[in-house]
Amino acid sequence: MNNFSKIQMGVDYYPEHWDPSLWEQDIMKMKEVGVKIVRVGEFAWSRFEPEEGKFHFEWLDRALDLFHQQGIQIVIGTPTHTPPRWLTAKCPDILPIQANGQTYHAGVRGHRCFNSTSLEAYGSRIIEELTLHYKNHPAVIGWQTDNEFSLVYCHCEACNIRFREWLQLKYGSLEQLNQEWGTVVWSGEYNDWSLVTTPYGGSPHQNPSYQLDFYRFQSTSVQQYQQTQIDIIRRNCPVHFITHNFHSYPQKLDLYPIGEPLDVAAFDYYPNTSPDKTTTGPYSGALSLDVTRGIKRRNFWIMEQLSGPPGGWGPMWRTPYPGFIRAYIWQTIARGADTVVQFRWRSATMGAEQFWHGLIDHSNVTGRRFEEFTQVCKEVNTLSYLLEGTSVRNEVAILFSHDQLVALDIQPQVEGMNYYENIKQWHRALTKLGIGTDVINWTERLDGYKIVIAPSLYLMDTTIANRLEEFASAGGTLIITHRSGVKNLNNICLMEPLPGMLSHCTGVHVKEYDPIANDNHHIITTDERTFSTTQWCDILHPTTAEIVASYHDDFYAGQAAITVNSFGQGKVYYLGTHPEESYMKSLLHELVVDQKILHFTELPEGVQISVRVQESQTYFFLLNLSRETRMINLEHSYKSVLYDGVIHEGTLTLEPYGVDICIIWR
Amino acid sequence: MNNFSKIQMGVDYYPEHWDPSLWEQDIMKMKEVGVKIVRVGEFAWSRFEPEEGKFHFEWLDRALDLFHQQGIQIVIGTPTHTPPRWLTAKCPDILPIQANGQTYHAGVRGHRCFNSTSLEAYGSRIIEELTLHYKNHPAVIGWQTDNEFSLVYCHCEACNIRFREWLQLKYGSLEQLNQEWGTVVWSGEYNDWSLVTTPYGGSPHQNPSYQLDFYRFQSTSVQQYQQTQIDIIRRNCPVHFITHNFHSYPQKLDLYPIGEPLDVAAFDYYPNTSPDKTTTGPYSGALSLDVTRGIKRRNFWIMEQLSGPPGGWGPMWRTPYPGFIRAYIWQTIARGADTVVQFRWRSATMGAEQFWHGLIDHSNVTGRRFEEFTQVCKEVNTLSYLLEGTSVRNEVAILFSHDQLVALDIQPQVEGMNYYENIKQWHRALTKLGIGTDVINWTERLDGYKIVIAPSLYLMDTTIANRLEEFASAGGTLIITHRSGVKNLNNICLMEPLPGMLSHCTGVHVKEYDPIANDNHHIITTDERTFSTTQWCDILHPTTAEIVASYHDDFYAGQAAITVNSFGQGKVYYLGTHPEESYMKSLLHELVVDQKILHFTELPEGVQISVRVQESQTYFFLLNLSRETRMINLEHSYKSVLYDGVIHEGTLTLEPYGVDICIIWR
Amino acid sequence: MNNFSKIQMGVDYYPEHWDPSLWEQDIMKMKEVGVKIVRVGEFAWSRFEPEEGKFHFEWLDRALDLFHQQGIQIVIGTPTHTPPRWLTAKCPDILPIQANGQTYHAGVRGHRCFNSTSLEAYGSRIIEELTLHYKNHPAVIGWQTDNEFSLVYCHCEACNIRFREWLQLKYGSLEQLNQEWGTVVWSGEYNDWSLVTTPYGGSPHQNPSYQLDFYRFQSTSVQQYQQTQIDIIRRNCPVHFITHNFHSYPQKLDLYPIGEPLDVAAFDYYPNTSPDKTTTGPYSGALSLDVTRGIKRRNFWIMEQLSGPPGGWGPMWRTPYPGFIRAYIWQTIARGADTVVQFRWRSATMGAEQFWHGLIDHSNVTGRRFEEFTQVCKEVNTLSYLLEGTSVRNEVAILFSHDQLVALDIQPQVEGMNYYENIKQWHRALTKLGIGTDVINWTERLDGYKIVIAPSLYLMDTTIANRLEEFASAGGTLIITHRSGVKNLNNICLMEPLPGMLSHCTGVHVKEYDPIANDNHHIITTDERTFSTTQWCDILHPTTAEIVASYHDDFYAGQAAITVNSFGQGKVYYLGTHPEESYMKSLLHELVVDQKILHFTELPEGVQISVRVQESQTYFFLLNLSRETRMINLEHSYKSVLYDGVIHEGTLTLEPYGVDICIIWR
Repeated sequence: MNNFSKIQMGVDYYPEHWDPSLWEQDIMKMKEVGVKIVRVGEFAWSRFEPEEGKFHFEWLDRALDLFHQQGIQIVIGTPTHTPPRWLTAKCPDILPIQANGQTYHAGVRGHRCFNSTSLEAYGSRIIEELTLHYKNHPAVIGWQTDNEFSLVYCHCEACNIRFREWLQLKYGSLEQLNQEWGTVVWSGEYNDWSLVTTPYGGSPHQNPSYQLDFYRFQSTSVQQYQQTQIDIIRRNCPVHFITHNFHSYPQKLDLYPIGEPLDVAAFDYYPNTSPDKTTTGPYSGALSLDVTRGIKRRNFWIMEQLSGPPGGWGPMWRTPYPGFIRAYIWQTIARGADTVVQFRWRSATMGAEQFWHGLIDHSNVTGRRFEEFTQVCKEVNTLSYLLEGTSVRNEVAILFSHDQLVALDIQPQVEGMNYYENIKQWHRALTKLGIGTDVINWTERLDGYKIVIAPSLYLMDTTIANRLEEFASAGGTLIITHRSGVKNLNNICLMEPLPGMLSHCTGVHVKEYDPIANDNHHIITTDERTFSTTQWCDILHPTTAEIVASYHDDFYAGQAAITVNSFGQGKVYYLGTHPEESYMKSLLHELVVDQKILHFTELPEGVQISVRVQESQTYFFLLNLSRETRMINLEHSYKSVLYDGVIHEGTLTLEPYGVDICIIWR
Repeated sequence: MNNFSKIQMGVDYYPEHWDPSLWEQDIMKMKEVGVKIVRVGEFAWSRFEPEEGKFHFEWLDRALDLFHQQGIQIVIGTPTHTPPRWLTAKCPDILPIQANGQTYHAGVRGHRCFNSTSLEAYGSRIIEELTLHYKNHPAVIGWQTDNEFSLVYCHCEACNIRFREWLQLKYGSLEQLNQEWGTVVWSGEYNDWSLVTTPYGGSPHQNPSYQLDFYRFQSTSVQQYQQTQIDIIRRNCPVHFITHNFHSYPQKLDLYPIGEPLDVAAFDYYPNTSPDKTTTGPYSGALSLDVTRGIKRRNFWIMEQLSGPPGGWGPMWRTPYPGFIRAYIWQTIARGADTVVQFRWRSATMGAEQFWHGLIDHSNVTGRRFEEFTQVCKEVNTLSYLLEGTSVRNEVAILFSHDQLVALDIQPQVEGMNYYENIKQWHRALTKLGIGTDVINWTERLDGYKIVIAPSLYLMDTTIANRLEEFASAGGTLIITHRSGVKNLNNICLMEPLPGMLSHCTGVHVKEYDPIANDNHHIITTDERTFSTTQWCDILHPTTAEIVASYHDDFYAGQAAITVNSFGQGKVYYLGTHPEESYMKSLLHELVVDQKILHFTELPEGVQISVRVQESQTYFFLLNLSRETRMINLEHSYKSVLYDGVIHEGTLTLEPYGVDICIIWR
Repeated sequence: MNNFSKIQMGVDYYPEHWDPSLWEQDIMKMKEVGVKIVRVGEFAWSRFEPEEGKFHFEWLDRALDLFHQQGIQIVIGTPTHTPPRWLTAKCPDILPIQANGQTYHAGVRGHRCFNSTSLEAYGSRIIEELTLHYKNHPAVIGWQTDNEFSLVYCHCEACNIRFREWLQLKYGSLEQLNQEWGTVVWSGEYNDWSLVTTPYGGSPHQNPSYQLDFYRFQSTSVQQYQQTQIDIIRRNCPVHFITHNFHSYPQKLDLYPIGEPLDVAAFDYYPNTSPDKTTTGPYSGALSLDVTRGIKRRNFWIMEQLSGPPGGWGPMWRTPYPGFIRAYIWQTIARGADTVVQFRWRSATMGAEQFWHGLIDHSNVTGRRFEEFTQVCKEVNTLSYLLEGTSVRNEVAILFSHDQLVALDIQPQVEGMNYYENIKQWHRALTKLGIGTDVINWTERLDGYKIVIAPSLYLMDTTIANRLEEFASAGGTLIITHRSGVKNLNNICLMEPLPGMLSHCTGVHVKEYDPIANDNHHIITTDERTFSTTQWCDILHPTTAEIVASYHDDFYAGQAAITVNSFGQGKVYYLGTHPEESYMKSLLHELVVDQKILHFTELPEGVQISVRVQESQTYFFLLNLSRETRMINLEHSYKSVLYDGVIHEGTLTLEPYGVDICIIWR
């Protein structure tokens, strides 16, 4: 298989958007600045197949030959994200049907039902043609499936049929389905399979078990849709690698099964350019990168990276501040990106994305942003020999689950509680302490971690519960929070005291709870410090656990809010309430000191330190993702590999959006 | 007829939701804590008739036998609120059609058009079967029709046909309809009955007379739908009583004709548990209870009462504070509830209402809330011999009208003016003074009242106008407010000076008006006190009335704002503007002192005092519906019947959510 | 042709809404107060043709005869705004289809697709009958087409067919259309004309070129629809004039081609009565009047003028303050209105517009507002001999473009930037300096102006660019702002440095830009004054221009923000950012002093001065459109023509809503 682990820069390019007379000068300029990779083709179906069965690749051949002449390698996107108009007119079953019965018309993007048999037939054919045509092209090294998968929640006839089949496979009988969904509530019982449909609009009071399964079915449909594409690519292009560009987290779509058959995951990264977001944007961005790395638990690509102010059908964002583009590119590499592809070479002059700016403006005059890109290309190409083969290895993990995300969206527990936001807050606390963190699927094995944070594992089954117990038992530190162990995997509440299957390892029972939402409550730790909390208050009865903090307010003042339980060789924390960030940092700092996990005490706002390692060396990426100059106190001496071996001792000053990459000097 | 006037506690129980192995222990525990009544069956159609024409009551028989063994009595709900899936699939005409033409699909609740002939047929059959089956069951004492009626505003074919018939009956001819609706405006005249349809969506500029009649037709449809059910129940179960559980006021659905054929009205009461609502929640709750008592002008039931934090498809509320559940149960009894049924015994583990908590949590471990319930059961059962047969008798009434509510919603007069909110404010002022108040349909007779408050009787006809004149003439005090007498009952403006038919009794003409909305204006009383006002300023020309207060602001400063007119033996106040609460209290206090009406000068925030009487005795219910300890100054000495005859003199201290029930000692 | 240039007052009257017994007394009273003009008929189709082909004009004949007896002249509105129910039932193709496929049902107003062939047939017939019937009626002098045109964005079959035809005419071939729209983006290419449809709902990501053309097509449809009516009126009533009542600016509908075939434009003017709007309402009102005058670049009519608190389906507004009605009538005349028609004689007692108050309330008792109207009638009738034939002549113009408005709505550039609001701000600055301003279509010739302000000419072509260059070259002062010259007329970005075709005359290039939205930035002028700016920052590279102001903030501090370029005999300002009003006033004041343009230094809030001239005389209209007494400093002595020749020297005091009309005395 082609190497997809190079440390290199790329751009997204749409030859079909430009007069062919521009191609050569564009490609020459790419070569000149050090671009190694170009993605093409992912929206070009109407050019590949302008009418049914008439295939035209000669235009792309010409472009790819030019790329090849300049030594630039190519990833081709399958063009199924945008079926052409002749196809949707001929096969209207391709267009999704919304819950209210209305067709989601071509718009012209994402207008396709993943279960459409017409799309499967025509999509397979265009991919067959494309892969056969390019399997031996010397520039082509890999493929991107479709583009930016998201759930569609289609209600077409095909979706109804396949949903029914999916349920028959899962439950075997209608009796079982009625039982597992609890359809007896409100007379929702099915006595014939034909009555089982997708959840059409109307009443908002849909059964939550039904809704969760419909989500799973739709997510599985995307997975199967992609698999059809992958099968064709594998068969025709066995040495090419395959990727997909994920985007916009959190996605309800379950990323993990989609990522499973890929060789490498990719992410489309558009960090928020607004000065108002400087205290949150760099952290939610860091989480997105860690989520992406977690999809396959290894290095990944950036397939689209911010190159200018985004905009289009919505208003434009602020232009990236000088250094912003470069710093965020280095952030992606610091957290495990190998290849970084910028979206896009030049801003489109037409179509709805005209103002989603590329590296070069519409005028085709290169400016400040292009210069910055040129600098990064040089830096990346210079350091690639050092960084290639390095990876990110962490001792702390956060468990993430699309099932929890969706179930907690179907039934929001309390105003102000958001599953992914809570994960963001834990991750931000970790990032501010410079603690490298993996974010992995909650069903993954936990070997090798010292600390595992598992916010709100609302749905639970014995396999996971056992795994968590084993992890703690073997010496791990496990952090469990409110709304854990509430339900089984079919979204049915368990008839046992909370946290249900996690009661044993946490050593607590929840006596009762108060959904405090955005009301501010306080906890007092056993060492008399006070922190504010929101969202929820589980009133805890420790069975074997010790109290770490108690409530200060309301009728449960003095009762246990946070506990820790010694469990085998490890320990399990239970947080019955959602504390402010300073509490999270205090707890995590205590734990990482105790367990000798690499960290940095209190990094300034916007400063992030990440680490890539290989056997012989550790590279520290020091990033200032803010508009202010920042100083970092250093415990060791560091030598820069970015700036010709400059030595930093005592403190390191980073200019606004400043970056350094260092090794420990002594 | 079975006695429905017992003072007793009950629970809502869904045997079909639980494994039959749980039934016996649940029922034993009910018996143990003192539960006397259980409601069952109102959503169980799919269990009663799992497929067309196959009826299964054996499961409920078994449950009812167990209840009977423990001496618990049963109310059965007719299950028509949730038609089963086989039925809606077979007869899609059951599903309502929204104004935009889209079907309101099963969700699975409330998905039924009240005019569907299929629903009438199948609904009648299941009720026929149910009533025949249970007419002689010794546990069964009564029936609840359907569940929580609300308007649906369906636009199906049946609704169109019946709307047309309803209009033909009302108007006789199209000419008359065109005349009464004023369809000539904007060329809306009908020249053929087939053109008369329900108001399909599209333009928002619908004719207000048309809209008001469509509302009335839909409300009447619910009434006829219920009557069909009542007819069956009466025929088959002549000794059983019939009720319906009203909910969520204000309802546009006209409660009074729905309540008319019932033996007893019931209410589903979920007082807001949020600490933010403690200054308003207890008062709007009190109004809901008074509205419910007004439906039949006698004691009522609570068919669902809050037992834990509600939640489900929306976020959960705060958990009820200790004492909250008990205090609000006593509030319902204080205002005329006889039987109070808690929703629900145990929280559902499945379905969309999983987090609408019952007395017992999903874990089936009883806790704080269940203990509180147990205490109330004991108290109620202890006092029932004293309280049975007592009733609420008041000398003050507020007139309430669904027609006004709807007409003022069709054409909101001014931002910030809400018909029901204005009633709430009058009622809150009365409640804060401990003045017992009836809230009755505006078409009721007014005999026996000393004060009648009639906010914004916007639609008016001569019958009511005459009744109001007679009331005042005979010595009553009548309070009329802005936006009264504007229109006839068909929503057509009257061509006479405002307040139109009420000009004579009020002794004023409105010269002009200023819709001030949320702008703050002020009035100055003749004794020089200043109060703020909002919403509206009628500039008054007193013809026979005296000025009570004048405007302070704007070009009408100095002109009359509030007047009083001596009318026969009584007097009529006209308020041309909406004053702040302190003005209302000041005016009402003056009136009740003058007329020797029972009241309490300025009760603390959250404290309510209500009275139930019988010939020989008066029971004072003293309630602290707040999270703070409150003190009440007493003019008399009181003896507690709740706490073993404890005597209160001078002051009475009520703990947070504290309750006492007393008689006057001396 | 009948004279439509009289200075006179009128009212809107709906004989069909009132019992005929009222007509005579209403008309006598109109005569008595001095009403000269009445508009009738524009919603009366169901009375003119109560069933298909049965025409009834006898009722209107009787009313018009009464008007004629009192010497009142009549404008008849064609009744096509409200097709009757028998017609929409017979020809459902008249009802518009929304983007989501749903029918826009009768509501009962504006429910008609402008491309419906049925509407064309039936509408033409009723107009044929009306015009033939009234062509010789002595009272009738003119016609109003339909009522208050707005775009409908219909998606019916007829719209699809005509849209396709319109595109075939515009582009000739599909190849050309694909090219001009850039449909290759996202595979949106058409390979068959049948695939070209209106933009059905679904995806929000529609191609902006497609959207702009669909808007133009819909706007053209209205124009053609009106032309059909005009052709009939011209043929049958050659001496009658034709007008249309425009309303609610900004309209996306292109006013200029609609206005082109009219004899006189009219406007429906409802200035906001709220005290909260006194700092903005009088200025946006002034702009509306100037826009209306610009439609035909000559005097206009007011066809509906505020007479009381508006309201209806929405809440009512505040009642107009004493003097408000009169002052706003004089404002319309001051800015070029000749005839002012009040909406409406008496408030409707029925229909959805019951609370859109007329001069007389429902009670039919005249009051304060009617007295004020009576006063204005007397004043207008007294001064009409002086004012008839005067007109408004200005040396400053603002360019306005519906194409820019729509294109900037399709792709909002940045939060906080609104094309029309920006025009409002320029116009307000001008109005506060008493500078008379024309607001004209951006395609108009610019002869005779000294200053032309052209905010955000986002779409540009060489014709206009050349015209702007010629204007400046010949000595004019041109003001160009950010987001100019971005695109061609088909909404495709130009591949040249901004401001594109305006780079030559402005003498600048935009190096890059920062969409700062609502963030507050500052500029510093070369004379060291600081002003705040928002929305956008173009970072300018002056090629031949001089710097006027530079940025103070961000990474472009010190770089050029505003420049001026000497161009031929004139000069061209480029504003790369949107400054606060005080900067606009400062710049404009400097320019008008320099160019000796009539102005008034800093008028108090709410005070407006406008000028009507004829050869021999200039009339100054001095208006206080505020609730406060205002003083104006006078440079000259003025003699009042309104108040018997009173002389004003030094200062002039205007009472709240006070008005004077003066000539210069010495």
